[in-house]
Amino acid sequence: MTSRTEHDLIGDREVPADAYYGVHTARAVDNFRITGTPIATYPDLINALASVKEAAARANHDLGLLDQRRAEAITAACAEIRAGKLHEQFVVDVIQGGAGTSTNMNANEVIANRALEHLGHTRGDYHHLHPLEHVNLAQSTNDVYPTAIKLALTTGLHRLHTAMGALAEAFHDKSVEFADVLKMGRTQLQDAVPMTLGQELKTYAIMLEEDRQRLTEATDLLLEINLGGTAIGTGINTHPDYAASACTHLARITAIPVRTADNLVEATQDAGALVQLSGVLKRVAVKLSKTCNDLRLTSSGPRAGLNEINLPAVQAGSSIMPGKVNPVIPEVVNQVAFEVIGNDVTVTLAAEAGQLQLNAFEPVIVHSALKSLTHLTAACDTLTTRCVTGITANRTQLEHTVRNSIGLITALSPYIGYTNATTIAQQALTTDRSITDLVLDTGLITPDQLATLLQPEQLTQPRPLGNAPAN
Amino acid sequence: MTSRTEHDLIGDREVPADAYYGVHTARAVDNFRITGTPIATYPDLINALASVKEAAARANHDLGLLDQRRAEAITAACAEIRAGKLHEQFVVDVIQGGAGTSTNMNANEVIANRALEHLGHTRGDYHHLHPLEHVNLAQSTNDVYPTAIKLALTTGLHRLHTAMGALAEAFHDKSVEFADVLKMGRTQLQDAVPMTLGQELKTYAIMLEEDRQRLTEATDLLLEINLGGTAIGTGINTHPDYAASACTHLARITAIPVRTADNLVEATQDAGALVQLSGVLKRVAVKLSKTCNDLRLTSSGPRAGLNEINLPAVQAGSSIMPGKVNPVIPEVVNQVAFEVIGNDVTVTLAAEAGQLQLNAFEPVIVHSALKSLTHLTAACDTLTTRCVTGITANRTQLEHTVRNSIGLITALSPYIGYTNATTIAQQALTTDRSITDLVLDTGLITPDQLATLLQPEQLTQPRPLGNAPAN
Amino acid sequence: MTSRTEHDLIGDREVPADAYYGVHTARAVDNFRITGTPIATYPDLINALASVKEAAARANHDLGLLDQRRAEAITAACAEIRAGKLHEQFVVDVIQGGAGTSTNMNANEVIANRALEHLGHTRGDYHHLHPLEHVNLAQSTNDVYPTAIKLALTTGLHRLHTAMGALAEAFHDKSVEFADVLKMGRTQLQDAVPMTLGQELKTYAIMLEEDRQRLTEATDLLLEINLGGTAIGTGINTHPDYAASACTHLARITAIPVRTADNLVEATQDAGALVQLSGVLKRVAVKLSKTCNDLRLTSSGPRAGLNEINLPAVQAGSSIMPGKVNPVIPEVVNQVAFEVIGNDVTVTLAAEAGQLQLNAFEPVIVHSALKSLTHLTAACDTLTTRCVTGITANRTQLEHTVRNSIGLITALSPYIGYTNATTIAQQALTTDRSITDLVLDTGLITPDQLATLLQPEQLTQPRPLGNAPAN
Amino acid sequence: MTSRTEHDLIGDREVPADAYYGVHTARAVDNFRITGTPIATYPDLINALASVKEAAARANHDLGLLDQRRAEAITAACAEIRAGKLHEQFVVDVIQGGAGTSTNMNANEVIANRALEHLGHTRGDYHHLHPLEHVNLAQSTNDVYPTAIKLALTTGLHRLHTAMGALAEAFHDKSVEFADVLKMGRTQLQDAVPMTLGQELKTYAIMLEEDRQRLTEATDLLLEINLGGTAIGTGINTHPDYAASACTHLARITAIPVRTADNLVEATQDAGALVQLSGVLKRVAVKLSKTCNDLRLTSSGPRAGLNEINLPAVQAGSSIMPGKVNPVIPEVVNQVAFEVIGNDVTVTLAAEAGQLQLNAFEPVIVHSALKSLTHLTAACDTLTTRCVTGITANRTQLEHTVRNSIGLITALSPYIGYTNATTIAQQALTTDRSITDLVLDTGLITPDQLATLLQPEQLTQPRPLGNAPAN
Repeated sequence: MTSRTEHDLIGDREVPADAYYGVHTARAVDNFRITGTPIATYPDLINALASVKEAAARANHDLGLLDQRRAEAITAACAEIRAGKLHEQFVVDVIQGGAGTSTNMNANEVIANRALEHLGHTRGDYHHLHPLEHVNLAQSTNDVYPTAIKLALTTGLHRLHTAMGALAEAFHDKSVEFADVLKMGRTQLQDAVPMTLGQELKTYAIMLEEDRQRLTEATDLLLEINLGGTAIGTGINTHPDYAASACTHLARITAIPVRTADNLVEATQDAGALVQLSGVLKRVAVKLSKTCNDLRLTSSGPRAGLNEINLPAVQAGSSIMPGKVNPVIPEVVNQVAFEVIGNDVTVTLAAEAGQLQLNAFEPVIVHSALKSLTHLTAACDTLTTRCVTGITANRTQLEHTVRNSIGLITALSPYIGYTNATTIAQQALTTDRSITDLVLDTGLITPDQLATLLQPEQLTQPRPLGNAPAN
Repeated sequence: MTSRTEHDLIGDREVPADAYYGVHTARAVDNFRITGTPIATYPDLINALASVKEAAARANHDLGLLDQRRAEAITAACAEIRAGKLHEQFVVDVIQGGAGTSTNMNANEVIANRALEHLGHTRGDYHHLHPLEHVNLAQSTNDVYPTAIKLALTTGLHRLHTAMGALAEAFHDKSVEFADVLKMGRTQLQDAVPMTLGQELKTYAIMLEEDRQRLTEATDLLLEINLGGTAIGTGINTHPDYAASACTHLARITAIPVRTADNLVEATQDAGALVQLSGVLKRVAVKLSKTCNDLRLTSSGPRAGLNEINLPAVQAGSSIMPGKVNPVIPEVVNQVAFEVIGNDVTVTLAAEAGQLQLNAFEPVIVHSALKSLTHLTAACDTLTTRCVTGITANRTQLEHTVRNSIGLITALSPYIGYTNATTIAQQALTTDRSITDLVLDTGLITPDQLATLLQPEQLTQPRPLGNAPAN
Repeated sequence: MTSRTEHDLIGDREVPADAYYGVHTARAVDNFRITGTPIATYPDLINALASVKEAAARANHDLGLLDQRRAEAITAACAEIRAGKLHEQFVVDVIQGGAGTSTNMNANEVIANRALEHLGHTRGDYHHLHPLEHVNLAQSTNDVYPTAIKLALTTGLHRLHTAMGALAEAFHDKSVEFADVLKMGRTQLQDAVPMTLGQELKTYAIMLEEDRQRLTEATDLLLEINLGGTAIGTGINTHPDYAASACTHLARITAIPVRTADNLVEATQDAGALVQLSGVLKRVAVKLSKTCNDLRLTSSGPRAGLNEINLPAVQAGSSIMPGKVNPVIPEVVNQVAFEVIGNDVTVTLAAEAGQLQLNAFEPVIVHSALKSLTHLTAACDTLTTRCVTGITANRTQLEHTVRNSIGLITALSPYIGYTNATTIAQQALTTDRSITDLVLDTGLITPDQLATLLQPEQLTQPRPLGNAPAN
Repeated sequence: MTSRTEHDLIGDREVPADAYYGVHTARAVDNFRITGTPIATYPDLINALASVKEAAARANHDLGLLDQRRAEAITAACAEIRAGKLHEQFVVDVIQGGAGTSTNMNANEVIANRALEHLGHTRGDYHHLHPLEHVNLAQSTNDVYPTAIKLALTTGLHRLHTAMGALAEAFHDKSVEFADVLKMGRTQLQDAVPMTLGQELKTYAIMLEEDRQRLTEATDLLLEINLGGTAIGTGINTHPDYAASACTHLARITAIPVRTADNLVEATQDAGALVQLSGVLKRVAVKLSKTCNDLRLTSSGPRAGLNEINLPAVQAGSSIMPGKVNPVIPEVVNQVAFEVIGNDVTVTLAAEAGQLQLNAFEPVIVHSALKSLTHLTAACDTLTTRCVTGITANRTQLEHTVRNSIGLITALSPYIGYTNATTIAQQALTTDRSITDLVLDTGLITPDQLATLLQPEQLTQPRPLGNAPAN
């Protein structure tokens, strides 16, 4: 026998005999042939579902609503799933209608059938242990699914936080390495005033550290769960002590300090924490993209570009141009950033479209957020190991641009006045002479004064000044 | 021996002995571990690459630049790929740096190694036939890749066009079936004036047909290719007759009427056709989403909603609420629409980020566009077969809302004046009486006149009127 | 004489004799004829600029770099501006190139010319007091402008926070008023389980309160300023004690607890706090829009809609349909939300486009953010006073939908099992009989038990249950 | 007496005695205090409303439904408005609820009151000529407003089309001027192969011309109007010949070849043409932004940047850095582009939110689209006159980069093979020697051959080649 018959409100339907999933899952697979990507693509989500189901079973058992044998069988099945087993049975599409019902049904069925085996029964023998009446006891998709989503995202956020930390550290190390390398700072792509390459690279480390703080804040919002709210947050069909008990069990099982929301009606329909998270991921993407733009720009060349730094060569750059090496690692990070920014718009639309007591579009929200998370994490790891740690500086080129720069005039402006300084800058540009020569010609500053004023430590930080010109 | 050694500008690298891809592909796999999704996910793209490579080989042979044996071996390999073989060898990530170089390299290597076998040599024996010097002859990633992208998208667009046609027909059929079912039209969710359910559903068919025309226009822009432009569109390292010859071969091979762009420098850097396509897909998404919103709204209930139409039940709706059936098919289409709209933002960002003679971010553009295309096609198919064809109407409920409606007053307004009509409408609302009773009470219209004016065919189309009130 | 001649690096240029602005402003007006909207449209921004200039002057005076007479003249001019004077002199376009330089120049010139008058000189007589050498002393656009932006946004955020508080309170008051009104909760627009109208409306109050907390967090990030960083954050041309002194003065002048960023190079180029703010405003928009969607939906009708609540009539709804009243207030809020979401994309693009040591696109960021802030504030005020406070409930209609609902079966499911419950729900739908009748027919529950189970307080919160079906 | 009393379904309300608008407008002003910007900001929209009202009046008169005196009075008032009079009476906010009803009401009232004066009556004396019963006869906001929007956008599009044409011509002229200036082409910011500066700039002209074609196509979709559909497109309260007659009159009045949509129910609710237009404006923005990015990049410097071209100096660039000149014109165009891209998201959201027979959110769509149109037009004008026409080239610098470039190796690759070429390129980079020296050292190419191969006309277009290496 290669199939078994199951039944739902639509009628009978064959299910593969060896499938742990059942009729509800099978119908969902038929209904949602959209991306071809099953939810098993997100192991964190599958594990989170198992954690929620176990927490519910334990709470129900504690409250005397689920007998010990069934509770233990369910718990055992959930533990196996968290250990990585049976994930291939989670087959519904990542984009699905039904507000996650099919994902919840998939979990109920897999757990029920595995638990049935633990109890010595065969799959599909639901009168011994039922996917809905026992595994889903005191639960609704509408509290199980959002809770599982938040656990999965929290786990993913932890990984991103770590990857960003390593990237920040790589930038920090480079900033130390290049602390003494003077270069021209630029505003609006025009030569501005000197700085060190260390100062430039340190900036990226600090941006990442700030973003990590934003991640931590966004994660905290995810810890607020609505488990126990059931269908619309009123807690219909739950025991008054259930929500608290399930939350306690869940925190213990996952080691994630989840807490029950104050108002479960609100928490059930509100996608705010997901919007906030997506907004923070977008912020991370914006800054990573800006950083990669800078890396590509300052490494442009080798001869007709800025040519200030070198990124490690990781592959041949061209099928037609021999020897060409391209900044492929920053480029792939840019693209992940663009994807994440687009995903944020998807999340925004889906969140706005929620109606009344539920947001039916959470599946595409979680799909988008998990994609953003995993791709950003991969992008950070790649950028760290295949690019930033190998950056080298073209010190001669950098020194040349500072010495040759018209921007030095700014450092002298407080001593000769903005108007005189403007005139000298224009002369430098039209005559191709150096600022230092032209300033000395004016006699406004002596050679010794000039040498002092143009020392690197004078140029790259505040310093005591004389009075403003008093005319 | 389980591996062979290949060499590139980075140095030596082992490649699995049975791999058709080579060193450039292997490095790209290492470099871009982002999504875990290989380009083989898009068979249209792999086939398109093979078509371009074959067209180039034939053109080079015609021009005397590639000998017959090599040309035939390359051609044979390309034909096999288009027949669906070797796709599993296309292993680089869909999101990759390098402007598609790794995708082109992957194609060059797979084709070269397969062609080597046809010539009786072993894989990796590139001095007989070289991935770059022969397979990539007179080509650059920068003309091969955009050309292949456009072919792949054209193929995908054809499928979407067909799917939208079937959906339009399904709505059309329903509009005929319900041509005589009167219902209240609504503006701003408030009762407006009567119409037929057929008129309401016909609208969706027309919207889809209009969008299909926009698809056709967007497709036409994709037919303009830059093959022959090589690195930056100047055609460096191509024969003056190459571009035209390659285009002719390509059109014949693919049966797609591609044409060479007038200015290849512009065509090489410009992502305009992709932005336009993405914009049109977004338009399709917007309207599909609006349509699904309407279907979900008019099928709301069964008892506390509008309850005007019924969507087919395709799965149980709830794990906690027995008997509940949800509009899961429109919901999944909504979510695809949200994803497509987000993808359009990604495409926009990537297109805007192009610099100088090339857009380095085409991989994420094509990934986004192909996702949008395939998901929209799946969504249309699903909506047609699992929802629209099974729609039924609650005729009693619909008739009741019309008879009971205050909106009927609008049809009488030209005969009694806007001001009188407003007063009667307000009376109806506060007294809960019917419009017809209240109008007859005024004596402004006789019962016979009223009966005539409220005939369905009078209400749902223009009709001759008397003069405007002359006071 | 109706004009005076001023000079800059471009050459001479006439300026209206009575203008307080000067040559730099005049050129900017010529260069940026984009929106026709001058920066004076944002009084908070003008006031913030005056505060920054005063703080700088005071700090420079404290450090002995600016003499007392000039410092007092500048301070007096700034105080006048903060009192609302001279705002009409701030004439550069809200969208401008130059990273805000023209805005800073505009402020320097207006303040200098007004200060000159205080010193007994005529406008344009800059050798007594110079816009750049004195008013802009130790400053750069690149630290003045971001600092002023953040002050302006902080002020605007305070107003929005207040407006959202009032709206939350209005929803809260309504939730108390309707605490005992039972209605059907809905998920996916399908009848779910009962709740109270108070519970439904309370949700909106809570969402708003949570968003207010997010606003407060986003505001905190804005308090970190880069004043003292000058051109690129290295603090070139500032005294080592200047940044701290200017910050202290600024906090005192504005009563806003600004603090100097730890790393001014990072703070000068980073638009992260603005991206974060925009993301939070988007979140507010998403939830306001969802709330308004719900209000429009539940007030739909009056006869062919859900007709659960009534929004106050604030204007005639139609030029052709007499007596029609539309939900125009929620509709305008929806549109503000759509605008804010679009603005967030603009901010994202502008932030991502920053290069190296500066983001040149801050003008469009601040324009977008200030628009979002002011429009959201107006939308909240409008929604509170013209809609929410006047909401009434159609109690009869609401009670009817609960009594008539199939969703009641969920409350009985724990006692009769999911499978039995499903069967009964389907019977109810096909036979048009009530759930209560059908359940009593089964004999599984007695009339007394049923009456208890269906009490409102049993339906809208957790309750002790019997065991799950043990079969 | 400074006010008159008017009446609507809400009750009595005072209106300023000298106002041409009436009670409906006054209430709308109270209700929508959002942006502070009145619809009069868009003269094209006001003119379009007047055109539609005149066309309707003429059609109604032709059909015998409106007497000659009233028709002439209405026509005269409309003509005055189109001549620019009374625009200050159009006072409702650009963002408004009610699907444009308030805008239509505003037009009805202003026209009625002005027509009353023409008939010798006083304002407010509506029993002689009524805003709704006569001016709005056979009309609904739902056909008047979308029709007027499309006319206004068509007019704006014509201006943008012209401005883009001038910009394209400016780029074309520069491409001719620099047709012989050789430079390095770049891909991925890395030196690629040579091209001419003329080829580079010509690209922007071609992009603009292609976008102009897309504008023309998008405009054509706008010509399809729904006038005559009234409330929901069924044409209720119109004469069967009205729609055709009104369309004919409207085309004649405006000289815009409008045509009546085939299906008015569809045309009334569908925002597709506006979404398409917005998508095309976004495409224009994307390419303009890319173009400006390139201009800013190639003009970077003056000494530490690419320094290939010079943009005209139009204002001083810095308040602290004397002599600095920034690319402020491209920068402002970038920002307009970012705004337009954000506006497109707003339009998308508003279009998607349309429900059933009407899109209630057209006001924010038209506000966004008109902003995008007018700002893009201003941006193109500015870019043309203040930047592109004044571009100069640094010929010495450009020639130097070509001669010094490693990218020359690509031109030689067909003669020495990709592998040899790669080796030489790497040698050049590590030894800092020139490609030409290194190639001559190999003896693979003679000095004469080399001189021929490196002629500019050989480098920047296709050329006959020898066979591929045959090994």
